[in-house]
Amino acid sequence: METITSKTNDKIKYASQLASASKRRECGEFLLEGARLCSDAAESGIGIVRAFFTGEALTKYSGYTDRITQVCDECYEISSAAAEKLSDTGNTQGVFCVCRIRENSASPLKERGRYIMLENVQDPSNLGAIFRTSEALGIDAVIINGGCDIYNSKALRAAMGSSLRIDLIRADNAVSFIESGKKDGVCFLACVPSETACEIPAAVSSHAGGALVCVLGNEGSGLSDAVISACDERVTIPMKGRAESLNVSAAAAIAAWELIR
Amino acid sequence: METITSKTNDKIKYASQLASASKRRECGEFLLEGARLCSDAAESGIGIVRAFFTGEALTKYSGYTDRITQVCDECYEISSAAAEKLSDTGNTQGVFCVCRIRENSASPLKERGRYIMLENVQDPSNLGAIFRTSEALGIDAVIINGGCDIYNSKALRAAMGSSLRIDLIRADNAVSFIESGKKDGVCFLACVPSETACEIPAAVSSHAGGALVCVLGNEGSGLSDAVISACDERVTIPMKGRAESLNVSAAAAIAAWELIR
Repeated sequence: METITSKTNDKIKYASQLASASKRRECGEFLLEGARLCSDAAESGIGIVRAFFTGEALTKYSGYTDRITQVCDECYEISSAAAEKLSDTGNTQGVFCVCRIRENSASPLKERGRYIMLENVQDPSNLGAIFRTSEALGIDAVIINGGCDIYNSKALRAAMGSSLRIDLIRADNAVSFIESGKKDGVCFLACVPSETACEIPAAVSSHAGGALVCVLGNEGSGLSDAVISACDERVTIPMKGRAESLNVSAAAAIAAWELIR
Repeated sequence: METITSKTNDKIKYASQLASASKRRECGEFLLEGARLCSDAAESGIGIVRAFFTGEALTKYSGYTDRITQVCDECYEISSAAAEKLSDTGNTQGVFCVCRIRENSASPLKERGRYIMLENVQDPSNLGAIFRTSEALGIDAVIINGGCDIYNSKALRAAMGSSLRIDLIRADNAVSFIESGKKDGVCFLACVPSETACEIPAAVSSHAGGALVCVLGNEGSGLSDAVISACDERVTIPMKGRAESLNVSAAAAIAAWELIR
């Protein structure tokens, strides 16, 4: 295994630049950190472009690093200075992979599939939690628009590998995606905190025969009016307390649960 | 309003010591930060022992600080140095209240009440999210044991005031609380990630006539064996994906939703 000691090495510099969302979009690659997460990526068939391990990590996490070297030809042993340059955490494990962003924009929705769609959900912890819950409950895929940065390092960590395993559909223009899906008979339910919207269990049962998508919006501003209008129906989780709304990850958990029961 | 400029003033020192969980337990008081949260506390009837405002806060957040001064006799204008000593955030609003911890250990459970009970849930974001969801869905009270530090500043922020409004029951010994509740006819459901446990909707409907408590455990280790044995039944949220378990706040959202539908 070739060794990189300098933190100004071009490959290290490139990998550290992937901390920026615009660089990730431009290059179609992201940086993954952590022994378990990187090994999960290798097992899930995520394209690993190159891997970096500290010498300590090669000993301490050999079970994980072996799995990565099996699928990745370009592996480097790096110095701890280089590892610190790449790391987003206070106490790095010294395991990093540059991975290819999966592009599934053309995926058709399954005939009786159950989907969660997110418009501009921005908090990395919420994004991670929604992926984790969706995978655990058996949602067929998560559909995201351009405003959901799931390859942010915090979002990747919060998802605990779920965002690397679950099917992922990119719908950069949410409205066109919905309009085109509706032509194929897919039903889109816009989740809104509103007393006049249909309660989610009733809406799900009345559309249970076909593919169903619950669409959830941004933490602060909710769904855009354009997305709400494009959807088939407005649905809601009835609230009784004085809290103004549910957190989007709690709402997504309940929506996903209703979709799959 | 009296002014405190020194950050070594005894009242400032005492308030900053409330950052420690053991100090909070010893004194039965906690420190709340933020204009909106402190004003929420004043409106929710939380006992406010004393309040601290920076001069800037008294102007900028006068709507909130007025509400606090109406219910609290002991208010101080403090210097920004003192505010920084008290603050847990990078960019403080300069509004702080020392509040009395509510003690509801003797609360009896309502005849057809619906409750969430937590054993040693430790992550402040999870605790906050569970309070927020429980309040929004209309859970009657959250029951916590000694291992749930809900007066941690991060947990208070994540709850967005819910933990100050929703009924709160302290059960320092979870097993005795469950055993005594069962004598009063309350049903306790232990939420576990297990394929052999009863699915939660079936368990809730078969016990729907009386008071019902869903008990959820620690992020890493789940519920203790003692609590599981003390409960009436083991229940589960069926999982289909490769995720090992749901996050406790997602599980609590689904449990609360099933309890109240």
